[in-house]
Parts: sequence; C-alpha cells; structure tokens
Amino acid sequence: MRPTPFTDSVSTLPEQLRKHIDESNVFATVATIGTDGQPHLTVVWLVRDGDDLLYSTTVSRRQYRNLIRDPRATVMIVPPESPYVYAEIRGTVTVEPDPDRALPDQVSLKFTGKNYRDFNPSGADDPADRVIVRITPAKVHSRI
Amino acid sequence: MRPTPFTDSVSTLPEQLRKHIDESNVFATVATIGTDGQPHLTVVWLVRDGDDLLYSTTVSRRQYRNLIRDPRATVMIVPPESPYVYAEIRGTVTVEPDPDRALPDQVSLKFTGKNYRDFNPSGADDPADRVIVRITPAKVHSRI
Repeated sequence: MRPTPFTDSVSTLPEQLRKHIDESNVFATVATIGTDGQPHLTVVWLVRDGDDLLYSTTVSRRQYRNLIRDPRATVMIVPPESPYVYAEIRGTVTVEPDPDRALPDQVSLKFTGKNYRDFNPSGADDPADRVIVRITPAKVHSRI
Repeated sequence: MRPTPFTDSVSTLPEQLRKHIDESNVFATVATIGTDGQPHLTVVWLVRDGDDLLYSTTVSRRQYRNLIRDPRATVMIVPPESPYVYAEIRGTVTVEPDPDRALPDQVSLKFTGKNYRDFNPSGADDPADRVIVRITPAKVHSRI
C-alpha cells in the first residue's frame, strides 16, 4: 500500500480530515486497551466537536470498562471510497454522562435519517447508562 | 449502532467471513501494541491462508517492531458497503521472511490488477526487507 506520503504528525485535526468527519458518515475503528494489554477494537459512529472526536456507548460495554481503567484510545478513520487515504488519531479520553441519551439520536439522525430508537430498537431499549466518549487528540498521523 | 446481534466468539473464521476475505478487497485495520502500551493502528491489504490472515510489511515499520516485541495483534474487518457487519479477530503473529517479495505482488494483483511496482513504485523501491505477517486467530467476534 502507501501510494501517498504521510503528513507530519500533529495534535490537531487537519482541515481535510475535519471536512471529511463533518460531511461523511464516519464509521471509525476505535482501539482501547484490554485488561491483558491486547487492543480491543470496535466500530463506532463518530462526530466532531472542535478537535475532539465524540461517540456514544454504554457503561456495560467492554470498551467503556477499558477506558475507565486506561483512558488512552487510538482511532482509525478510513473513507470507504478512498481506502488509501486515512488518519490514525491517538488521544486521551474523558467520559461524560448523557442522561437524556441525546448523542445517539444526534448521530443516528445524521447517519441514518432516523431517531436511534427507530433505527435500532433493541439498542435503544438497552437499560445501561449512556455515556459520551470524548477523545482529545495527542497525535494525528494522516494522509487525508 | 448494533442493529444485528453478535455471533459467539470462536477461534476459527466463520464461513461468511472467509468468503468475504476471499472475494473482496479487504482493507483491514490492524492493531499492534506500542512501547508505551497504546494501540498502534494501520490499514493493510489482507488475504487468507486457511484460518490465518496474512499481510506484507517491512522490517522498518513501527508495526513490525511492535510485533517482534509483543506478537499479539487485533484485526478489524469492515465491509465498506455493509459497515454494520464486521469482525474483530484477536490473534498471535508469526513473522516469515519474504526474500522474493512475493506477497506484495500477489496481493497487489488481487487488489489493483497491477504488480506492486506498477501500483506503488516508491513502496517497491523501499530497500527494507519484506516480511509476511501471519495472524493465527485465538478469538473471532463477528456479526458477518
């Protein structure tokens, strides 16, 4: 692979990457650190708040328990239509409560045009508390 | 997300996942473990040999140095046309020499229809030794 060179590593999101996150439906792969040190990977719907990346999860998920134990996360964003163009973002996570379950609806409306409950009833019925995972970039390595 | 349930965790590749890997161009995200424990993510062209996943890299890459230090890797496969369907594969890596640089050509022909040199001249000119990374699954968690 590697048909294009990397940009230098920075701690903010390059303009092209911001544009991609804002204008596309970004299914990002998020790596957290398991109890045994092995990376745990999940796919999430991702949105942006300034330079931070946000996604929704629940307190019952393994990735949440991993982040509470070790708040470091690494994110890979690959535009499906341009798989040679991608960004690896290493960051530190803070977790915020989402008592009104607002983020799942916000993101579901962007990604599917439906409220979260209409898109995924069983997900919406999960009684576990919803939280917002906020990833603040420390290093961004991209060829976007 | 989560519109479909997970299959149980297994240590072999489900038939549907094999079929997807064989018949599609799989750009997989591979997580290795950095010196500080934080996951390092890259995107690779992936092919299959039985239950093992194979990709090519060089001995100058960080992911290679990570794997020599700690041979655990986690792979995420997401079909771009079906992003709600995915597989997380945790495995252990063995590294094999590739003195004839055969794997880059094999995979490039599958993915691009061109020899690796024709697709990516600067990559082919990289003098660093090529190796085959072979990931043997220990746990496969999928909804494919």
